[in-house]
Amino acid sequence: MAQYNQVTPEIVERLQAIAPGRVYTGADVNEDYSRDEMPIYGTRMPDVAIDAMSTEEISAIMKICNENHIPVTCRGAGTGLAGACTPIAGGVVICTMKMKKILSYDTDNFTVTVQPGVLLNDLAEDALKQGLLYPPDPGEKFATLGGNVSTNAGGMRAVKYGATRDYVRSMTVVLPSGEVVKFGSSVSKTSSGYSLLNLMIGSEGTLGIITELTLKLIPAPKVTVSLIVPYESLPDAIATVPQFKKAHMNPQALEFFEREILISSEEYLGKAVFPRNVGGTDVGAYLLVTFDGETQEEIDAIVEKAAELVLDAGALDVLVADTPAKMKDAWAARSSFLEGIEEQTKLLDECDVVVPTSRIADFVGYVKSIEPEFGFAVKSFGHAGDGNLHIYTCANDMELDEFKKQVDTFMTKIYDKATEMGGLVSGEHGIGMGKIEYLARSVGETNMKLMEDIKKVFDPNLILNPGKVCYKL
Amino acid sequence: MAQYNQVTPEIVERLQAIAPGRVYTGADVNEDYSRDEMPIYGTRMPDVAIDAMSTEEISAIMKICNENHIPVTCRGAGTGLAGACTPIAGGVVICTMKMKKILSYDTDNFTVTVQPGVLLNDLAEDALKQGLLYPPDPGEKFATLGGNVSTNAGGMRAVKYGATRDYVRSMTVVLPSGEVVKFGSSVSKTSSGYSLLNLMIGSEGTLGIITELTLKLIPAPKVTVSLIVPYESLPDAIATVPQFKKAHMNPQALEFFEREILISSEEYLGKAVFPRNVGGTDVGAYLLVTFDGETQEEIDAIVEKAAELVLDAGALDVLVADTPAKMKDAWAARSSFLEGIEEQTKLLDECDVVVPTSRIADFVGYVKSIEPEFGFAVKSFGHAGDGNLHIYTCANDMELDEFKKQVDTFMTKIYDKATEMGGLVSGEHGIGMGKIEYLARSVGETNMKLMEDIKKVFDPNLILNPGKVCYKL
Repeated sequence: MAQYNQVTPEIVERLQAIAPGRVYTGADVNEDYSRDEMPIYGTRMPDVAIDAMSTEEISAIMKICNENHIPVTCRGAGTGLAGACTPIAGGVVICTMKMKKILSYDTDNFTVTVQPGVLLNDLAEDALKQGLLYPPDPGEKFATLGGNVSTNAGGMRAVKYGATRDYVRSMTVVLPSGEVVKFGSSVSKTSSGYSLLNLMIGSEGTLGIITELTLKLIPAPKVTVSLIVPYESLPDAIATVPQFKKAHMNPQALEFFEREILISSEEYLGKAVFPRNVGGTDVGAYLLVTFDGETQEEIDAIVEKAAELVLDAGALDVLVADTPAKMKDAWAARSSFLEGIEEQTKLLDECDVVVPTSRIADFVGYVKSIEPEFGFAVKSFGHAGDGNLHIYTCANDMELDEFKKQVDTFMTKIYDKATEMGGLVSGEHGIGMGKIEYLARSVGETNMKLMEDIKKVFDPNLILNPGKVCYKL
Repeated sequence: MAQYNQVTPEIVERLQAIAPGRVYTGADVNEDYSRDEMPIYGTRMPDVAIDAMSTEEISAIMKICNENHIPVTCRGAGTGLAGACTPIAGGVVICTMKMKKILSYDTDNFTVTVQPGVLLNDLAEDALKQGLLYPPDPGEKFATLGGNVSTNAGGMRAVKYGATRDYVRSMTVVLPSGEVVKFGSSVSKTSSGYSLLNLMIGSEGTLGIITELTLKLIPAPKVTVSLIVPYESLPDAIATVPQFKKAHMNPQALEFFEREILISSEEYLGKAVFPRNVGGTDVGAYLLVTFDGETQEEIDAIVEKAAELVLDAGALDVLVADTPAKMKDAWAARSSFLEGIEEQTKLLDECDVVVPTSRIADFVGYVKSIEPEFGFAVKSFGHAGDGNLHIYTCANDMELDEFKKQVDTFMTKIYDKATEMGGLVSGEHGIGMGKIEYLARSVGETNMKLMEDIKKVFDPNLILNPGKVCYKL
């Protein structure tokens, strides 16, 4: 067990000399720095918060904190859902939100170099201006890229283009010791020693602090179209999923959701675009599918083929969103699921489980079958094309302790079921501090011990983001 | 420095009890087990060789060797080019070539589960029978999949489909202690702790022994066509490379090579299909480009656009290989470059450097500019679309020591140049025992120390494949 020291006034002074005017203590620390979007796992105010501006500053800060055994937690926008950036051991929080420069594009090699605090949305829009696409597209557009890399964020387009991992070419990292290293390079393939780059990706700020990223881009597809596909029931909708790939169709996005979650999101947005009844039949579930391509003819042919496919598979209808405005409306509802839930819910927890795509229907069936055992409501949606489900437990009239107890029983059951089906605890949100026990149960002691020992290789004093992923306080 | 013990007769007896009839000693050990395809880095016969048949056998063998501090090196077909499977500390060699079962396909989730000794060629052919493609396509088709994963093998199709890393979903691994673990799962995305899976990929048999693999497949493209594109000079050929991507063309393969290497390969094969003179101009270099797609119309349009593009970029001609026989002939020449060189050469070394694609021409120019300083011939070809070059130093009339000395000077210079250009030491062949010093020079001491310490996490007694990647004997 690591022993930590307090931040003394003398240390605060040394930190202030490194980042003048950007070191906050006491009541000056932003309350947001105590948590991410899932406060149910616990919150804690740091003793000191620093808005860092450069690799050199972060290196100097880490040297001081490492020498003095002071815990450090790095954060970006704080949009995480597993408590990964909550400074549960106190100490220093380093925020990278001011490191938000898009540094340079390399249009010959299709890469962009950014600071870690650049928001996903800002890179996406800027890249599009150059005719380029940054494929990762998590629901939360205002996360930082440093955060996205730290959780290997997935998102809507992962079904075609892969997750964040597939778009990270290299990174500059400040190690807990303060040493500055580079992992990877801008080249597209490598077999040059252990992939420290891939070890950093998804390590949730526990091994080092990312201070620069070189990311892969692709030429932006020229034509995009979305299909809204209503079904009578969720099993019908989900049974369609593997059919697309079998028919050699490669959707850019392939989402599923149930009626109830769509309604709460549309109510939150104050705009309804999805049909709720088709020819007298109530819609029970939807697929939202996007295709992209190079020419209108290509896309027209795909849409025709896809429409036939889903109708054959029992869809009630197919609505084509083929203008930017229509697509924006359709996807706005999808993007607001979490906000819609949050607005209606006092107590909230979630899981981000991932199962083989062919098992989604079975898995959702299992979740529904155990729901009546619990006092909370269960709402689910997810990335059907990836087998990645977001399952929310929502309560308004429960005591916190009782809610937590019931959620733990529920989560243990569904994670065990996912593991049994060959799945994993998290598809894209990470482990943070909320899911360590579930991860251990899923991957076993030996894997956890390997992770812990790797953590110690990078961070022998265990000062960096303590209590997360594999190292429990 | 690790201390190793001898294999005693008593230990040989225990090993024979585990793998009856498949434990070899003394003169019964296959001479091939002393080396891979690059004996210039050194060879050594192991004391014991075992043809393993199962995870359980390998686990039992590792337990004995770990307890007794006996070095173990795992090998597949031995087609490596960096000395990674050479048992330079002696001890035990475990060969996985008899673990060659394709265990099961999951056609809903597009995965296949195989034993590590399955040959790339065998999986490729078998998958195609089910209408599926295993995209990684290294030049050497008779490598094992375990070996491919251990070097993160790249190959021809990496430019479109990525390297082996992108197709590994999960693996069963025997750790040096004998413990059996599973890394990853068959699901398509994950954020469930440090990626031990990605750490194993490309670790060249130094962290654990892969005993089962679940790999991702894709629906096989329905139409494929190759273009043979002759140029007067290599710079002309290479200048074309970034144009394809900029024009939103996504070749499945994009290779370049010079006249001389083509001639030696065609002489080796006894069949000439590439033009050597076009309209009175001698061909100096070639691009060999493959496109794939879903319909003949799609491919016809791409070929037309590509032909226009290369002719605008100064190509002398475009030859279309649009039948299986013509494509086979064109690619047979490409696949035999190494054999062609080997047949004509007594002393051979190579590098597998990777640079940003936009720097290939500069890099090859640099290599050519220093070639006259050395007493060997330099032959180069490579995966133009990836910036991955294979540069061979070939001599017939030099003393071995002088050759090695000159090669070291040459390699140091070109690796330094690659590093300066943002490249890396190896794109796909790995570090093995031949490139450790160059890797250290390229990535620096801190990165090497992290790798060494990770090695010790997995293998505290340093018994597994000693002297490779980051741990020098």
